[in-house]
Amino acid sequence: MLLDSPAVEKLVDAFRRLPGVGKRTAERFALHLLSAPDEDSKLLSEAVGEARAKISKCSVCRNLSESDPCRICSDERRDHSVILVVEQPSGAMAIERGGAYRGLYHVLHGALNPLEGIGPQELELDRLFHRLEDGQVAEVIAATNATAEGEATAMYLQRQIGSDGVRVSRIAHGVPMGGGLEFSDDVTLAHALDGRTSM
Amino acid sequence: MLLDSPAVEKLVDAFRRLPGVGKRTAERFALHLLSAPDEDSKLLSEAVGEARAKISKCSVCRNLSESDPCRICSDERRDHSVILVVEQPSGAMAIERGGAYRGLYHVLHGALNPLEGIGPQELELDRLFHRLEDGQVAEVIAATNATAEGEATAMYLQRQIGSDGVRVSRIAHGVPMGGGLEFSDDVTLAHALDGRTSM
Repeated sequence: MLLDSPAVEKLVDAFRRLPGVGKRTAERFALHLLSAPDEDSKLLSEAVGEARAKISKCSVCRNLSESDPCRICSDERRDHSVILVVEQPSGAMAIERGGAYRGLYHVLHGALNPLEGIGPQELELDRLFHRLEDGQVAEVIAATNATAEGEATAMYLQRQIGSDGVRVSRIAHGVPMGGGLEFSDDVTLAHALDGRTSM
Repeated sequence: MLLDSPAVEKLVDAFRRLPGVGKRTAERFALHLLSAPDEDSKLLSEAVGEARAKISKCSVCRNLSESDPCRICSDERRDHSVILVVEQPSGAMAIERGGAYRGLYHVLHGALNPLEGIGPQELELDRLFHRLEDGQVAEVIAATNATAEGEATAMYLQRQIGSDGVRVSRIAHGVPMGGGLEFSDDVTLAHALDGRTSM
């Protein structure tokens, strides 16, 4: 009943949809914006719309990008024989920030989770398999998260791809169990990449 | 260099202006919005604009409100002889949530802070003094924060108003020193109100 205003309620609800934001935090955000200079709220409102309009999924790797194909997929200096598979764009970004990896990415936008009805069809797997068809890819690194769903997805990749002459490796478990890639520091991520094992 | 996109950079910058949001958190917010269904981002973008358009400062108490005068100022059942002065709308909301207070509010939108160039002219003080002119207000409760700036503001109120036959009281220091009203629980806020002392 903050401010007793439907417009503010709506704003608080919109903020609560952001990851890790509860009621109190959403209320603080809303009050801040309402007290701040007009340009602050205009900036946020515009930036959300603009980013949504300009950013889409790369038709090759399904990562979020302003260009299509994305900067990484179209970079000839990168190693096009390795594809690192992540669940979310944030994972690719975390690896990229580490700077140790020079291959390509593939973003699944999720992980297998039968209990929530997420099967292979719900993930960006068809496009991954399509990328392997021309035989230029020698290795697929399963960098899905160290959760039950991430492990299941890695196993699925190994079963589907492993027999096609493509090496399927798993990122080393330097990443803390149960944690997502985006919370790991650069050194841990680099070690996890180096210590990857065939599966 | 998240996503290497100016549009996303702009969105991250906009999120970083929210209180308590750093670079990593702002990036998580941005990525979440870009991965989420279109309606989520549309909702946020619209809600920000709508709330800003509908909410303004009450011409009497300067609290944020959809109506003018606000719901509290125009409520005849409330005690119009007491005005509780807070720094920010969030403080008024915290007191209101406690449910123990039945008087009116006045929001200064800041506290005296000479080092940052915030003097009496920068606060909503003129309108407070104006509200006292008709002699109907018997008490002003200084509920500014328990910080150096909040204490200075309370002292200023006492010096300016205390001699006009209006009792100036200070909210009791049940509120932890150095903390803002919005982080206190309802019981602490109720005790702080009850234990207020004349100044």
